[in-house]
Amino acid sequence: MSERTFHWAVIGPGSIAHRFADAVAQLDGCRLHAVCGRDAQRTQAFAGRWSQPGEPAVLAHTDPAAVMNDPAVDGVYVATPHGQHHDYVLAALRAGKAVLCEKSLVPNQEMGRRLVEASRTHRAFLMEAVWTRFLPLYQDLAAWLRDGRLGALRGMQSSFCFPAPYDPDSRIFSPALAGGALLDVGIYNLTATRWVLQHALGEVPPLVDLAVKARLAPTGVEAGLAVTLDFGDGLTSQFQCAIDTFAPNTMHILGEAGAIVLPETFWEATRAQWLPARGDSETIARPFEINGFENEIRETMRCARAGEIESPVVPHAETLAVLGWMDRIRALAGVRSPFDDAFPSSA
Amino acid sequence: MSERTFHWAVIGPGSIAHRFADAVAQLDGCRLHAVCGRDAQRTQAFAGRWSQPGEPAVLAHTDPAAVMNDPAVDGVYVATPHGQHHDYVLAALRAGKAVLCEKSLVPNQEMGRRLVEASRTHRAFLMEAVWTRFLPLYQDLAAWLRDGRLGALRGMQSSFCFPAPYDPDSRIFSPALAGGALLDVGIYNLTATRWVLQHALGEVPPLVDLAVKARLAPTGVEAGLAVTLDFGDGLTSQFQCAIDTFAPNTMHILGEAGAIVLPETFWEATRAQWLPARGDSETIARPFEINGFENEIRETMRCARAGEIESPVVPHAETLAVLGWMDRIRALAGVRSPFDDAFPSSA
Repeated sequence: MSERTFHWAVIGPGSIAHRFADAVAQLDGCRLHAVCGRDAQRTQAFAGRWSQPGEPAVLAHTDPAAVMNDPAVDGVYVATPHGQHHDYVLAALRAGKAVLCEKSLVPNQEMGRRLVEASRTHRAFLMEAVWTRFLPLYQDLAAWLRDGRLGALRGMQSSFCFPAPYDPDSRIFSPALAGGALLDVGIYNLTATRWVLQHALGEVPPLVDLAVKARLAPTGVEAGLAVTLDFGDGLTSQFQCAIDTFAPNTMHILGEAGAIVLPETFWEATRAQWLPARGDSETIARPFEINGFENEIRETMRCARAGEIESPVVPHAETLAVLGWMDRIRALAGVRSPFDDAFPSSA
Repeated sequence: MSERTFHWAVIGPGSIAHRFADAVAQLDGCRLHAVCGRDAQRTQAFAGRWSQPGEPAVLAHTDPAAVMNDPAVDGVYVATPHGQHHDYVLAALRAGKAVLCEKSLVPNQEMGRRLVEASRTHRAFLMEAVWTRFLPLYQDLAAWLRDGRLGALRGMQSSFCFPAPYDPDSRIFSPALAGGALLDVGIYNLTATRWVLQHALGEVPPLVDLAVKARLAPTGVEAGLAVTLDFGDGLTSQFQCAIDTFAPNTMHILGEAGAIVLPETFWEATRAQWLPARGDSETIARPFEINGFENEIRETMRCARAGEIESPVVPHAETLAVLGWMDRIRALAGVRSPFDDAFPSSA
């Protein structure tokens, strides 16, 4: 029995939404039904780009209510700047839509708690689009982490830095739009750290200490951070994240018997190397099936069809835990978001 | 006019001394004259191995006084465990010999100060064998750091970890022999950090903060450390060093316009990669002339012949500065060396 086609709507027709639409266009069992953006012309262009021959045109809206009130829409992909996620996600959950929302879901943990509550109240699926956790390579890495080859896990080192031209009005440097290195890119260092711990140890140990060194932009957001997450007994994850710096953007996982290297942009890796302390190294390559977004999209549809409100791969608690760490890191960095006043953290 | 042959004596005929002797054997203007070790058989074997056909045999001694009192000896290479360096170096300086001493020169800064004082008093050359600073690759890296291609320097990430089997009686895990990850390998992360800062900024800025997470061995020495050196304004150097862990042992230098990667064991690198944020990457390869030790040996002979007591490449102040950082790091790690009681740090 073939399932009914899953109808997606996109909020925020930016570059990441193009990647999402590209994956949807190539996946079975779903189609892009509508797109919503503030800029009518840009939104219309997006709709035209992703309308498929022989199918109804993708609808272009400038009012998100048109998406929320459309009974044909099954799922909403929220790809606006972070600072706008909360309101769109909340509206979609209230309308009973499944929601896949770009990371960071929201600028702080309290806002996240409210969205999780709305997901439960309205029995609507909610997942942060932590696509890395769904990549084919990471499934193989999970096997490496579980098979004990590392011996005792000792630590991690990673970087996610890219240099954006400084512009106080750009999204990424704007406190009002929840810019800054941590919410934009550091979230990947954090989520990958948690993922390694979960697969190597079976759980994420409590954070016993946290060292944060910050470089602030003139707008007050963090342009760069050097962070050490300390899980006790000398197990640490060190990372650098920045929006004013370039870095190799690798992740090294260190163990007593060897190391695992993600030698390329680790959050979208298709290759990994096992470097044993003794013996020959081993490399695995796992290309994307489409563009890397396919499995988080499939998972959203699977869960929504099954009536689930969260995915075991990126459960609500996981999203809230990362948001909690980010609250603590921003506090130590001396960064305060305008959202922290509206939604004060209880962390 | 050809110079008189420089006569070297080695104290401590271990594996690193073999590498030194191999370089001496291939260098013009010098020869290995004597070796001194506690184990007569091992010392004799070392002397036999490095005696050259058609030349006097390398003398084998078990009493270091035989080396110090031998007027033929121009320079002494000290390659014993760290805990024994101080006494041998002091004896050699008092005898007016030039001294090249393996790193770490001594277990703490106060002991280093006394050796520097002895070098001045006896007008005898003293250099810590920080051979990395003399490598051909590093000369090219220095040009990269000075030419401004990095834009603003943002930070560093490095690892130097190797897994030694745990043995409380082994040198490396022994407090009495000044074991532990920092003196054995972390010193390379520190000296490379200082080297990058010197060449990129013209000087090493003061350390404004230091974050240290330690994993202690049952013997009390640090088996692993995760360190962040903070130079203010978000300029940091993060590193992991360990004697119970494996790591890729790379160094990444992060700047606003690109990154430099030492993709192999960074302290003995023969290749480096420039990864610009925009444009094509560039790789340089600079093999060793002999085995990497040749230039520190040449420099020792050059300085000794010129009557200098320190080298501008690894001046006394540089050695003392690294020792001072190590004192602070060990203090934060909760590690106290037996040497700290005999030579209390004033840092």
